[in-house]
Amino acid sequence: MLSLGRWSAVRRVGKKSVLVVTATHTTTTNRATGGYTPSHLQKMDVPQPKILKTPLDVPSKLLMGPGPSNSPLRVHYAMMKPLLGHLHPEFTKIMDEIKEGLRYMFQTQSTVVCCVSGTGHAGMETTICNLLEPSDVILVAQNGIWGERAADMARRHEADVRVIEKAAGDVFTAEEIEAGIVKHRPAVVFVVHGESSTGALQPLEGLGELCHKHGALLAVDCVASLGGVPFYMDAWGVDVVYTGTQKVLSAPPSMAPIAFSARAMERVKARKKPIRSFYSDITWLANYWGCDGTPRKYHHTGPVSSVYALREALSIACEEGLESLWSRHQSCAQRLYSGLEELGLKPFISDPTKRTPTVTTIRVPDRVNWMRVTKYFMEKYRVEISGGLGPSAGQVWRVGLMGYNCTLDNVDLVLKIMKEALAEEEKLNSKL
Amino acid sequence: MLSLGRWSAVRRVGKKSVLVVTATHTTTTNRATGGYTPSHLQKMDVPQPKILKTPLDVPSKLLMGPGPSNSPLRVHYAMMKPLLGHLHPEFTKIMDEIKEGLRYMFQTQSTVVCCVSGTGHAGMETTICNLLEPSDVILVAQNGIWGERAADMARRHEADVRVIEKAAGDVFTAEEIEAGIVKHRPAVVFVVHGESSTGALQPLEGLGELCHKHGALLAVDCVASLGGVPFYMDAWGVDVVYTGTQKVLSAPPSMAPIAFSARAMERVKARKKPIRSFYSDITWLANYWGCDGTPRKYHHTGPVSSVYALREALSIACEEGLESLWSRHQSCAQRLYSGLEELGLKPFISDPTKRTPTVTTIRVPDRVNWMRVTKYFMEKYRVEISGGLGPSAGQVWRVGLMGYNCTLDNVDLVLKIMKEALAEEEKLNSKL
Repeated sequence: MLSLGRWSAVRRVGKKSVLVVTATHTTTTNRATGGYTPSHLQKMDVPQPKILKTPLDVPSKLLMGPGPSNSPLRVHYAMMKPLLGHLHPEFTKIMDEIKEGLRYMFQTQSTVVCCVSGTGHAGMETTICNLLEPSDVILVAQNGIWGERAADMARRHEADVRVIEKAAGDVFTAEEIEAGIVKHRPAVVFVVHGESSTGALQPLEGLGELCHKHGALLAVDCVASLGGVPFYMDAWGVDVVYTGTQKVLSAPPSMAPIAFSARAMERVKARKKPIRSFYSDITWLANYWGCDGTPRKYHHTGPVSSVYALREALSIACEEGLESLWSRHQSCAQRLYSGLEELGLKPFISDPTKRTPTVTTIRVPDRVNWMRVTKYFMEKYRVEISGGLGPSAGQVWRVGLMGYNCTLDNVDLVLKIMKEALAEEEKLNSKL
Repeated sequence: MLSLGRWSAVRRVGKKSVLVVTATHTTTTNRATGGYTPSHLQKMDVPQPKILKTPLDVPSKLLMGPGPSNSPLRVHYAMMKPLLGHLHPEFTKIMDEIKEGLRYMFQTQSTVVCCVSGTGHAGMETTICNLLEPSDVILVAQNGIWGERAADMARRHEADVRVIEKAAGDVFTAEEIEAGIVKHRPAVVFVVHGESSTGALQPLEGLGELCHKHGALLAVDCVASLGGVPFYMDAWGVDVVYTGTQKVLSAPPSMAPIAFSARAMERVKARKKPIRSFYSDITWLANYWGCDGTPRKYHHTGPVSSVYALREALSIACEEGLESLWSRHQSCAQRLYSGLEELGLKPFISDPTKRTPTVTTIRVPDRVNWMRVTKYFMEKYRVEISGGLGPSAGQVWRVGLMGYNCTLDNVDLVLKIMKEALAEEEKLNSKL
């Protein structure tokens, strides 16, 4: 059969390259035989989009919301480094270095410390889908959006989801959690350390022991807290913990650092049914991250540049040290609290020991339009503060103090703008 | 109760900041009440890792394996841009621009065109977990590792997995696929366009029509092919297609662009059970990417810098245009084929119409140690070519010609090094 074959060459004609398609004999042009046809000659259904001819347009903003926070230049520079293969020894060495950094950040000697190649929610889903089989009971301590999301994910995984609830801004006492455990006999207890939708900080000390006493594992969401407040995975008996890269670590969002205790890995290994996700299968992830003592196999292609960025971010965090990070977050938050009080603003969480310094929630006063205020921040200063989320929507502003952005200067800037914005609101109100 | 309270201030002492912890009265120090205790005073189990004090060490390599390929400087520069919030209008505008670029690359007018925030395997899993419910039949056309992985994922999702197989390097005819459909009555047919483990290119034209005739949907893995060979989602009746960012697009690995046809979305909406993954739920993803006509809700935090990189990579690809991209890949592959023939090397796939130009598989000759050759490439020239994977392991080398790295100069360099490496092998053999 004679037909148009594949193009045989590309010729330069002036500045353009041109296809030279030659007629060839081929036996593979019949569609029914599955043969290759010269499809490049087909009409294009979709033309080249004009919008992509304009340059990428990104304004500079100071991100003082609940995340992402800005990344320091060193982290951006790390992403300028050339790509490596996802199993090259120079790359797996960087992965090993990241593990050391994460062990320090999580305060754990656990062997299974790695990253899920997805953002915080991927860490949450990895926790759920590895620890739970259908009908397994999970007890979710829900006091904001993250508990809701974990419960949603666990229901999708056909777990038996039991929820204990607290009002937005409140946290659970050990007694309340124990009562929930005794009542529901869960295999897994899920709590959120820093509830970024409300600004609450869940006390964790002793919780692991309590869960283990009742045969349950403890899983903790530390996305919005890790590095900003004390956390000790091993000492506190935490079985699974995950975080995000874009909060206190101040790398771009892209990965979810995660750690499994030996107890958690035993549970994974004792599963009756396979883990439903291949991408999030912790046994594969642990192998790819060199945590299981066997040679690395090809699981998935790691996000190379994001891994560089995380390595650099961890390097910066470890250089400063946890004690300094914690105290910096605490003292900046204290300055913010005092400044807000001076402005006559009330905290959403009245008890300061229940607040995470990383995300401060502020009650929106009567007669103030919260959205006009956040707009004032953004339009006049290119500074982001956020409104509420989930249970706090419409009631609060949320100010993030995380990692690179957590400085006294930034606190003072937020306070200065808030003062102006409130004065603007006052003016508008007096005109009514 | 008197106890150590939270630190109240940070003082500068010389160059170091020091915690000032004050004794305070507090009612929340009892562990059993869940109160906050001054945990920062606890002993650190894990010290600061020394390795992170060394600078990030990344050598420059030319990646001529099956991916990742190198990224052009423009793409790296995009990641230098400051971070934005994942729902800021400037950011969602960039997401919209990416959708236009992807519609062009996929040749589709489909409304649901977006990205999974994970690498290629995450795209595969998103396809599987959205299209399939437990017991649904999926027919996997398996002729390499990607079919195997899709089958593995579908089994984890408790689908009824039927497999038709072809030898490594071979592809399926339309008749073979139709026979499989008639026999197994699948809800979904899964095929791999460019099988990077073997170098095979599966013909797709007409396949969608054939699947639809029998009431099945067509899902296609285009990770290693998109942009390098003709692909027309709409004209070919493809229902789900996904790719990776690190192949022909030449952005760092990080995201999986994906498109669902209206037919595929109907199937998703008709599900009886919820999609098992929240992170990969296409209805949430479609909303976050502004594909469903309703205001964007907060699904997950998109990988901001990776999104910039993809935007820039798409801008470069669209600027060149698909016809030129396809012809460039084809002509570089032709030059590679001829050069390899001159070196006396045999292609793993003898029929050139069955080869994807993006990944060329070369038979390792007798008496040649494939690994010594790839080492020669890397150690002497810092150039990567790969060995086989899955069914081709130990039998082949794989040379990638993708996107930014697909140039005649790079082909000539690979050929020159291969010639040297084979001469070295010859020398070693003659000494035996």
